[in-house]
Amino acid sequence: MNTVSAIGTAVRAQRGRVEALFDALARCGRTDPGFTRPSYSPEETEAHAVVTRCAADLGLAIGRDAAANTTLTLPGRDRSLPPILIGSHLDTVARGGNFDGAAGVVAGLAAVAALGALELTPARDITVMGIRAEESVWFQVSYIGSRAALGTLPEGALDVARIDDGLSLATHIARAGGDVDALRRGPPALDAAAIHAFLEVHIEQAPSLEEAGIPVGLCTGIPGNVRYPDVRIVGRPDHVGTPRRFRRDAAMAGAEIALALDRVWAAREAEGCPMAVTFGRFHTDAAVHGLTTVPGAFRFSLDMRAYTAVVLAELETAFLAAVAEVSERRGVTVALGPRAEAGVGAVCPRIRDGLAAAAEALGIAIRPLGSPASHDAAAFAKAGVPMAMLFVRNANGSHNPDEAMATDDLLDAAAILTAWLVAETCGG
Amino acid sequence: MNTVSAIGTAVRAQRGRVEALFDALARCGRTDPGFTRPSYSPEETEAHAVVTRCAADLGLAIGRDAAANTTLTLPGRDRSLPPILIGSHLDTVARGGNFDGAAGVVAGLAAVAALGALELTPARDITVMGIRAEESVWFQVSYIGSRAALGTLPEGALDVARIDDGLSLATHIARAGGDVDALRRGPPALDAAAIHAFLEVHIEQAPSLEEAGIPVGLCTGIPGNVRYPDVRIVGRPDHVGTPRRFRRDAAMAGAEIALALDRVWAAREAEGCPMAVTFGRFHTDAAVHGLTTVPGAFRFSLDMRAYTAVVLAELETAFLAAVAEVSERRGVTVALGPRAEAGVGAVCPRIRDGLAAAAEALGIAIRPLGSPASHDAAAFAKAGVPMAMLFVRNANGSHNPDEAMATDDLLDAAAILTAWLVAETCGG
Repeated sequence: MNTVSAIGTAVRAQRGRVEALFDALARCGRTDPGFTRPSYSPEETEAHAVVTRCAADLGLAIGRDAAANTTLTLPGRDRSLPPILIGSHLDTVARGGNFDGAAGVVAGLAAVAALGALELTPARDITVMGIRAEESVWFQVSYIGSRAALGTLPEGALDVARIDDGLSLATHIARAGGDVDALRRGPPALDAAAIHAFLEVHIEQAPSLEEAGIPVGLCTGIPGNVRYPDVRIVGRPDHVGTPRRFRRDAAMAGAEIALALDRVWAAREAEGCPMAVTFGRFHTDAAVHGLTTVPGAFRFSLDMRAYTAVVLAELETAFLAAVAEVSERRGVTVALGPRAEAGVGAVCPRIRDGLAAAAEALGIAIRPLGSPASHDAAAFAKAGVPMAMLFVRNANGSHNPDEAMATDDLLDAAAILTAWLVAETCGG
Repeated sequence: MNTVSAIGTAVRAQRGRVEALFDALARCGRTDPGFTRPSYSPEETEAHAVVTRCAADLGLAIGRDAAANTTLTLPGRDRSLPPILIGSHLDTVARGGNFDGAAGVVAGLAAVAALGALELTPARDITVMGIRAEESVWFQVSYIGSRAALGTLPEGALDVARIDDGLSLATHIARAGGDVDALRRGPPALDAAAIHAFLEVHIEQAPSLEEAGIPVGLCTGIPGNVRYPDVRIVGRPDHVGTPRRFRRDAAMAGAEIALALDRVWAAREAEGCPMAVTFGRFHTDAAVHGLTTVPGAFRFSLDMRAYTAVVLAELETAFLAAVAEVSERRGVTVALGPRAEAGVGAVCPRIRDGLAAAAEALGIAIRPLGSPASHDAAAFAKAGVPMAMLFVRNANGSHNPDEAMATDDLLDAAAILTAWLVAETCGG
């Protein structure tokens, strides 16, 4: 028997299971348009129940850690060996899509199901992990579930308020069935040194693969970021007819700061240096703004990301210089607010090469791809766990209702993952 | 007796009445900070009741027109002669100040009270008019009360929705005690050809007088404006890591359009050409924006104003050129939405010169001042009524809680107004 061809066939036979999983997930937090499964919300918990029911059907061992992450384990022959984790998240942004995050959990389940169908028992445990609270939009803290499991949550994170309802992360974790006391007390659920590898499948969040006509991307690195989630500019509200020399227009100051950084991005990108700068929230104050008032206040969020620490520092320096110059000239004050950063996430070359070899053996076209986004995988890499990622082609970007991933492409990624698992841990 | 000195004394004797009026008005719609008396709201109606009670104390004839404007009339010797109107508005923007608008009604009452104290009966009626709904922020239509009285409301204005509660202007007028059927049916309450003059006292909305150390400004003209109250940019929401070439960032497009126009303003102003450009609302969509999403939508309001039609056209051309260039380059679409305009308002030279002579006789320093803002007076000027305005020094701009007008300065303006009334219509 041609093992590789059998693996491909076994994974493709999971199509019905995969489709049923996405259908069931699509009933969790549907908001029309899109899906809204906030971190630690009942809708996210429902999504965890969906993947748990599938795992029960597959006979996996089901667990939940103190951060309410779900673990779905295919036991290995030697349960004392460090396990392989395959994980991604099940929360979404507001009115996001059904695939960002969830596709990685579904791919993991498809791979484990295929191993079962092939009657292969791994040498070590393979755990599919449904991770909580990856989307930083809700608590303005990233990878909460991963970092809670690894014991690397930043100081004070449990007391951060959810941006819309003002309740603390601790409150939301408790409501979702987590154990906040255990999180505060430790030890963490996972010991990074005792994890063999962390793999994550994720839809691509830009259309590079679509553009290239290739179904799967092989991650070459995860960008680090520097974030200012809540910058506030205070100028002075004035009548719409106020002469220019008297104005302290907070909105025009915000526009100038943003475009100063946008110009840096355009110039460096033209030189071949990849990065991204995003002002996701960028707004006057809805409580007081109006047609006939010069904006006295302006707020924005800023996310800067790049693949090296040097480029990140360059962006931050340009931002702070623009803040200083514009605030002086426009007579406004700028409160930068909290600052957050995440280091660049390095991919394990051995696993990356193994995945490439698996793709080649299966005859699936792949291409190397720098991740545009941060992922749970970055938290594991930072903790010292050997990490790799696969991206699945997706036409319309993510974090929007129009995410478009073909099941065939997901099955290609799951096949590569399965073939790697077979080579890595299902050998004689 | 020195008449001019007696006029000054009689007006300054109104200090207690003036302060009591502002105190009573400050209890209408106090929102801490500031005052919120929306157009046709119960809070605005309360302010009309305050000035009406004062007029009753003064023995004035009290009236209300179909648009619920309040008229407070000192009858003249010949009631068939065209009256002199002294008016301003009693509504405010959200969290505005207590003086924008109201100061003009109070000044009118102080002048009429002084005439009474001087036992002077005018030749013709003098009517103090408490005008409704001048602030265009609520219905995005300007001078509603004035234009309803003059029969010059734009087509469809009665069916426009208030920006926050969505109820029509007609509904709000009816709730405030107006007669919408009469407004629709006509004839209007005022015949412009049968008005002798319209005078308005208003706080200055910039600190030019404060800067110059002069209590009263003599209006040389009211700017015309072109407005786009609700421009909407549609781009595409994308993940925060989306590479630059794929983005259609609606917020960065908005920032570029705004700054293109801001640069035109800066350059022309440096050449000595006065104008103003204001993006009062300038914002991403609070329902979907977030730290990790490229803005797919952006909205703004735009007010452009200048003292000649040529400069106004120049600004509008620059705006539309920026919209075309930026939308093409950024891959976004721009829906301009409704457009509104108001013509330049010319001051009557005869009245202006009469006010200047009155100030000189009283020994009150004045300076000529182009109005930065539009005013009810512009609606009267456009209808063909001879019009003039006085501005009162005000430190902190208007449309904000920190408006700072000294009672002494208001009394100076009222004294000039009173001396003009005496010369114009109280002669033998």
